[in-house]
Amino acid sequence: MHCPDKQGIVTTVTKFLAENNGNVLYIDQHVDSDGHQFFMRVEWDLEKFSIPQEKISDYFDTLIAKKYGAKFNIYFTEKRPRMAIFVSKMSHCLYDMLARYSAGEWNVEIPLIISNHADLEHVAKQFDIPYHVLPVTAANKAEQEAKAQQLLKENSVDFVVLARYMQVLSEDFIKQYPNKVINIHHSFLPAFAGAKPYHASFERGVKIIGATSHYVTADLDAGPIIEQDVVRVTHKDTIKDLVQKGRDLEKIVLSRAVYAHLQRKVLVYQNKTIIFS
Amino acid sequence: MHCPDKQGIVTTVTKFLAENNGNVLYIDQHVDSDGHQFFMRVEWDLEKFSIPQEKISDYFDTLIAKKYGAKFNIYFTEKRPRMAIFVSKMSHCLYDMLARYSAGEWNVEIPLIISNHADLEHVAKQFDIPYHVLPVTAANKAEQEAKAQQLLKENSVDFVVLARYMQVLSEDFIKQYPNKVINIHHSFLPAFAGAKPYHASFERGVKIIGATSHYVTADLDAGPIIEQDVVRVTHKDTIKDLVQKGRDLEKIVLSRAVYAHLQRKVLVYQNKTIIFS
Amino acid sequence: MHCPDKQGIVTTVTKFLAENNGNVLYIDQHVDSDGHQFFMRVEWDLEKFSIPQEKISDYFDTLIAKKYGAKFNIYFTEKRPRMAIFVSKMSHCLYDMLARYSAGEWNVEIPLIISNHADLEHVAKQFDIPYHVLPVTAANKAEQEAKAQQLLKENSVDFVVLARYMQVLSEDFIKQYPNKVINIHHSFLPAFAGAKPYHASFERGVKIIGATSHYVTADLDAGPIIEQDVVRVTHKDTIKDLVQKGRDLEKIVLSRAVYAHLQRKVLVYQNKTIIFS
Amino acid sequence: MHCPDKQGIVTTVTKFLAENNGNVLYIDQHVDSDGHQFFMRVEWDLEKFSIPQEKISDYFDTLIAKKYGAKFNIYFTEKRPRMAIFVSKMSHCLYDMLARYSAGEWNVEIPLIISNHADLEHVAKQFDIPYHVLPVTAANKAEQEAKAQQLLKENSVDFVVLARYMQVLSEDFIKQYPNKVINIHHSFLPAFAGAKPYHASFERGVKIIGATSHYVTADLDAGPIIEQDVVRVTHKDTIKDLVQKGRDLEKIVLSRAVYAHLQRKVLVYQNKTIIFS
Repeated sequence: MHCPDKQGIVTTVTKFLAENNGNVLYIDQHVDSDGHQFFMRVEWDLEKFSIPQEKISDYFDTLIAKKYGAKFNIYFTEKRPRMAIFVSKMSHCLYDMLARYSAGEWNVEIPLIISNHADLEHVAKQFDIPYHVLPVTAANKAEQEAKAQQLLKENSVDFVVLARYMQVLSEDFIKQYPNKVINIHHSFLPAFAGAKPYHASFERGVKIIGATSHYVTADLDAGPIIEQDVVRVTHKDTIKDLVQKGRDLEKIVLSRAVYAHLQRKVLVYQNKTIIFS
Repeated sequence: MHCPDKQGIVTTVTKFLAENNGNVLYIDQHVDSDGHQFFMRVEWDLEKFSIPQEKISDYFDTLIAKKYGAKFNIYFTEKRPRMAIFVSKMSHCLYDMLARYSAGEWNVEIPLIISNHADLEHVAKQFDIPYHVLPVTAANKAEQEAKAQQLLKENSVDFVVLARYMQVLSEDFIKQYPNKVINIHHSFLPAFAGAKPYHASFERGVKIIGATSHYVTADLDAGPIIEQDVVRVTHKDTIKDLVQKGRDLEKIVLSRAVYAHLQRKVLVYQNKTIIFS
Repeated sequence: MHCPDKQGIVTTVTKFLAENNGNVLYIDQHVDSDGHQFFMRVEWDLEKFSIPQEKISDYFDTLIAKKYGAKFNIYFTEKRPRMAIFVSKMSHCLYDMLARYSAGEWNVEIPLIISNHADLEHVAKQFDIPYHVLPVTAANKAEQEAKAQQLLKENSVDFVVLARYMQVLSEDFIKQYPNKVINIHHSFLPAFAGAKPYHASFERGVKIIGATSHYVTADLDAGPIIEQDVVRVTHKDTIKDLVQKGRDLEKIVLSRAVYAHLQRKVLVYQNKTIIFS
Repeated sequence: MHCPDKQGIVTTVTKFLAENNGNVLYIDQHVDSDGHQFFMRVEWDLEKFSIPQEKISDYFDTLIAKKYGAKFNIYFTEKRPRMAIFVSKMSHCLYDMLARYSAGEWNVEIPLIISNHADLEHVAKQFDIPYHVLPVTAANKAEQEAKAQQLLKENSVDFVVLARYMQVLSEDFIKQYPNKVINIHHSFLPAFAGAKPYHASFERGVKIIGATSHYVTADLDAGPIIEQDVVRVTHKDTIKDLVQKGRDLEKIVLSRAVYAHLQRKVLVYQNKTIIFS
């Protein structure tokens, strides 16, 4: 939840939970002192909670949110989010996520993988996940996106991960999934936004390269940043070396971002993220 | 030295040294395979070297450099480089360098400090170094730079360190000191070039901030990068926190760059640096 | 404050503050789920607070702490902590702290520096801080420690920083300052505890070296860790290189630990630290 | 190659290659000044090299190595090394390596996977690699190791990777594969050697955890370190959190070590590694 900062919000919320036998398992809050905004994430045990699951949202809205002008989301741990993966030709991010999925590291369902190329179909087969090839050209882009959206709906997909998907999604598509499309960009944004960041990094002679995972917005490579990390490079590293070192960064950074999202620990406010602890 | 890459350069140079009783103490080379350029740094012992010190450059030029089309510099360890420091109002980088100087960590002379403000005069006094105040305005900039250049000449300064000096030096000034003016920029360049990088980092919501030390060129914040480093930040960090975390980065990154320069381990080629090991 | 974890503590404390017009400026809590312990740090504005400053501790104890079995400390921002620095011969940590002190980065008083050697007296003089030389031998150790303790008392010292002080303090001394003596150890503890960690790191061939700042306890190098950091090394680094790279680590890690302590953000529980955000 | 340090080695080797039309593609050397040892790695093009491939070792030995007392190994790029993977129940390191293998990142053959448990057989099947289950008990250990060795021989295995294999190999086994068994230990060695390092890290309250990849020697967790890396943790991290953060470290550190080994860039000398650039 978030709302304008005001005395007593924490007390109000924790009292509400305590009075209804909701044992608090987790609480983390953040106050943006300059923006006068309050942010909080609370987890509580439903077992003895006296408000029925389907009415919690209504009660919380009426008794608390409206009074504080708060926006909030309620998620239930038992409900596994459903995630679609978009890929092109590179397998490293895809493998990293499927390995976690397969090992049970992540509480997620992956009902489908969508690609503009057939190259990674064998990977999808290894993990027994349906793989849909939707080749994109300038001419058929709108049509193929419509098909993709249809597939996402049929599969009740909650959010989308672009795992080095080399196509730019249309504004229309992105609007359907606000803060629900996670991308990995292979640079330390805002440095080297756009195409070929490793080539640009090499040209500029930087001593460190990075990767950035962010929610996709209409403004290319400018969405809210979820996670970033970096690795040292030297004058000895060729572009090929940067690409290789970058692969390890990309997959770890993307997976960290997806994991934070899966845990409902990311809150977007004014194009920035609060990442709860 | 650097030159177009060609078979046998290493052999030629090491033979030249061996035949003249120059015991090699250090050798590091780099080949830019795409650009077909060869780079090398060699250190040898002069004690039994049969070519007199003052003639080495001439002999090396005639016997080796001309044949390979090589550019080279020869430095003698016994000659301590003379460094001027330019500051404005912040003392952290200045103190960090003077502490190293005072402790004998660096083989350097610091004959003077120049500033556009009087604020740090007490620091210069603590270390007994002459401090010259040259306040810069739009009107007197050329004049004050001329005075600064005069001071640098009088003090036989070899290179200049801008330790959070908040003025942009004129192109004319920079041309006098090619690859001899080291700046610290408080961002991970090329991200957040220009003014107020911490404010811009905060606005963009990055999860990592950086600092970059580079040689100053006519193109602002675009000179050859010598050293960079980063530190993690979170949504909890205010601009003030970024400034504070950044201070530690700035001073360490700048001092590493200056140290590499002092050891003659930085070679600039096409706006990038080779940093020898 | 910390106490056994129980429902409603946060509510009780925030209500207590709200009811007495104490505007909460900062709140961070931590629950150790396995150990069933609750930890919290709260900052509030005293301006309109209805309980007089000198009675806050008594009221808090009676109305809250006793009920929850809580231990707590109350600090007032207006009271600057008084810190003594112990050094031997190396100046890097000392300079780093005095530079911050001099620049006003830290809210602290430094009434004296104590050393077993005269080597760094000139540094103390640069910053106009009394410097006491107490040379320690096996024979006079107890006596010199008594003198040091006398000096600390005369100067109302709140805590002590060992800035590469090469003597082991006696158990008796340490007991006088529980969780109030901060040391910097030049390794990534618990690796390379004891003497000559850089030599041991070199022998073992590690690829990363570290530094650790911790509270000193009777058990050498085993006290609660406040902060650690690391830097990469390679087979090319000699022991001298490790010492040099380590110096920068040591000073930054120690200063971060001291800063956290100064902000009253470190809470020790069962030989571990909670570092509030 | 490595040998006692002596003037002219580089010249001798590069001349030998040049005179026989061996175009040098890569050269990196290291001098251990204290130990007076010289280390070098050279790559050259065989296309026009005048010495036949099968005689190179003999010629190099006679013409160079014997004169300098050098030890050396010669590897041919065209020969793909054959690697066996040992696993127990955790899949993260295994998946990471197989994903690289499958994507063609590594120049390697993986003819078999050996495990003391059947748990990861499905992973081997996904990648179509034979999986041998050899359950180890105190009673049958020698027998099962003999079977494993037999399998390694039958499959002409060059080196072994222990990807979180939870058994200690016998000294006899290890002697068969000197500097050819790569292990990943889930701590920053030498800290937390032995069992349960994450539990020990948690108990000690460290602020950073690490992972170490090393060659296995008879002395447990004390073999030559190839690669290490670390990640920050806080008081909020439970043992479960450490295990999870550690997984990502382990797989990246192990894969970096295996990659360095595959590129023949690791040279072991006196229980330490030289990692060529």
